[in-house]
Amino acid sequence: MSAGIFDKYATLKGNYDSLMATSPRNPFGVVIERPLSATVGIIEGRETLLFGTNNYLGLSQSTTAQDAAIHTAKTMGVGTTGSRIANGTFGLHQKLEKALATVFRKKHAMVFSTGYQANLGTISALVNKDDILFLDADSHASIYDGARLSGAQVIRFRHNDPADLEKRVARTDKTTGARLIIAEGIYSMTGNIAPLKDFVEVKKRHNIPLMVDEAHSFGVLGDHGRGVAEMQGCEDDIDFIVGTFSKSLGTVGGYCVTDHDEIDLMRLCSRPYMFTASLPPEIIAATLAALEEVKNRPELRQKLQENAARLHQGFKSVGLNTSNFISPVIAVTLEDIPQAITFWNALLDAGVYVNLSLPPATPDNRPLLRCSVMAAHSATEIDRAVETFGTIAKELKIV
Amino acid sequence: MSAGIFDKYATLKGNYDSLMATSPRNPFGVVIERPLSATVGIIEGRETLLFGTNNYLGLSQSTTAQDAAIHTAKTMGVGTTGSRIANGTFGLHQKLEKALATVFRKKHAMVFSTGYQANLGTISALVNKDDILFLDADSHASIYDGARLSGAQVIRFRHNDPADLEKRVARTDKTTGARLIIAEGIYSMTGNIAPLKDFVEVKKRHNIPLMVDEAHSFGVLGDHGRGVAEMQGCEDDIDFIVGTFSKSLGTVGGYCVTDHDEIDLMRLCSRPYMFTASLPPEIIAATLAALEEVKNRPELRQKLQENAARLHQGFKSVGLNTSNFISPVIAVTLEDIPQAITFWNALLDAGVYVNLSLPPATPDNRPLLRCSVMAAHSATEIDRAVETFGTIAKELKIV
Repeated sequence: MSAGIFDKYATLKGNYDSLMATSPRNPFGVVIERPLSATVGIIEGRETLLFGTNNYLGLSQSTTAQDAAIHTAKTMGVGTTGSRIANGTFGLHQKLEKALATVFRKKHAMVFSTGYQANLGTISALVNKDDILFLDADSHASIYDGARLSGAQVIRFRHNDPADLEKRVARTDKTTGARLIIAEGIYSMTGNIAPLKDFVEVKKRHNIPLMVDEAHSFGVLGDHGRGVAEMQGCEDDIDFIVGTFSKSLGTVGGYCVTDHDEIDLMRLCSRPYMFTASLPPEIIAATLAALEEVKNRPELRQKLQENAARLHQGFKSVGLNTSNFISPVIAVTLEDIPQAITFWNALLDAGVYVNLSLPPATPDNRPLLRCSVMAAHSATEIDRAVETFGTIAKELKIV
Repeated sequence: MSAGIFDKYATLKGNYDSLMATSPRNPFGVVIERPLSATVGIIEGRETLLFGTNNYLGLSQSTTAQDAAIHTAKTMGVGTTGSRIANGTFGLHQKLEKALATVFRKKHAMVFSTGYQANLGTISALVNKDDILFLDADSHASIYDGARLSGAQVIRFRHNDPADLEKRVARTDKTTGARLIIAEGIYSMTGNIAPLKDFVEVKKRHNIPLMVDEAHSFGVLGDHGRGVAEMQGCEDDIDFIVGTFSKSLGTVGGYCVTDHDEIDLMRLCSRPYMFTASLPPEIIAATLAALEEVKNRPELRQKLQENAARLHQGFKSVGLNTSNFISPVIAVTLEDIPQAITFWNALLDAGVYVNLSLPPATPDNRPLLRCSVMAAHSATEIDRAVETFGTIAKELKIV
């Protein structure tokens, strides 16, 4: 007899039930009743400090982005009801693609309806079952899912390890299929920054294109906010830069920028690009406005760096276990899952929201309290978060 | 030596180059400079009648939806910058899920960031490599991509053929994995309507869950606009109904509704749900407003049916080859690709936009001029479209 469709959930249900037995609330079911600002939202009826949103520049609450969305919803409606290759390309979509290409100093840009689909659509357009993908072991789910959709062989290399990549790439130099290396700028769980300049050396030695996902680094790092490749001075050697609108730009959607003229053919074979409705005009307009702010307000990046340093320094000062580098993503590593669940709930009870990341979804299989800082945070808000962390850590005898 | 990343584009490039040699413009690169209303947009500087948008009820230009988007962009910002399982669930997302469940008279609903991701996320949460999927051969790309992401074995059955499904299902009755049947309500290319009631018989006989994608039928068919399952009186026997916000509801996003309480576990294993930013609040608000219109304005469905009948009758009267049934999707079948390309360009030159669908993407490998009709079309607009089709068909000696 064939199995029931939900029989496969037995393990998941067991894990979920034990989580819920130890946690007063569902850590994956938090509801922000409404945001009051970029940094404060109403959760469980109380004002709560938001320290887990990826809203790095606070632009989801930008007045110019809001005004652009409002004006465009009024004049153009609330959706395109069409795919980019049918009726779903408005003048605004092309304008945003041109603006992205200009910002990145690349020839072309392609806009997708989500960041997830940007990775699925770029990867599955570039490689197929005859090809090989080299993926950083800590790659985001959307990169793994894009790999799966493409059908390409996946070879993982050790996280942020150019020597390991070199070794694995060298073994495939006689392959007849195409090859593609993929890395991220900032890794979303730990805030780790990729050694892109070293990956470029590998790519050049073996003549393989390199794709970089700057989802968490665009708007955040580099003199002009173009990300890790800009910061490390290797932008010209990145073949495909993928990113999202749902972090520093504050809206939703994704993109791929490249100098390769084949982009117009990519549009005709990327199923996650072709078979989905395009982004509504008001979202495109808000994104264009946010992109202008990234260009014109470098002080936001400066403030973000200061805030990241303040939060990092604060965590160190109260004795918490965190990274040795400063990044807008700061993860506090804990020893075990029950401790992490208790800590996370205590933070929320005290009015501080962060992300709870549990094994096996975490690097090294240790639970994390993942924080992300914003340019919009005030020094007082950061100090209050640090103080709350410190008090709870003492109560739990962690420090 | 390994292949170049774009070597695989040789065939695609050949096809694209020959298309562009015969077509004065790229049929997949049409730009609507801006919409003037639901039915008219500016294309190539000219007012153009839109007959290929899937905007069935015209709600992308609904004033109440626009007002809801404007109010919400003002009060809540332009994005959530978070996944549904982290900071991306606002009160509005839950409100929309409750509203969808109520409309469909099901216990639960789950909202996704695109319709494409609704299919990927539902299918990949329900089946895995040990399981078998039965897919209608003409299924939408998002269903095939969801199947691929899930890793399940795919068995295709002949389009809209319950006997063929029965035969293929019966052969697998001894399988140990789980099984799932997937069909659509209205098929997007041809307007064909699925015999869901007959599929329900097969499903019951073999005790297999049935998932139906009502993307093109929600808001369109059934006494309350719930789609083909409502029209055929078999809603209670559909286990999972998937749909989109980017057709009759005029925005962007997707959903799955079900009576199965395991939905909260689906939220924790559906990667296309978990690893993507949630929909911006202004899109959710516009969708909620559009859903109210679907409920409160049955006259829109009535008008849509009248318009579909008028367009269908018009095409028949000028001698064009189209379906023998009336549907808001009406495809005119042509003999060969050059004829279809000439016809499509002549229509656009004359100010009528429809979708050009070319083999191999079409059923039966024949080119289609795919039209979709709207409640918002006036009788005059429909008659003008018919007249334009008729004139061109005569000039091309098709009729």
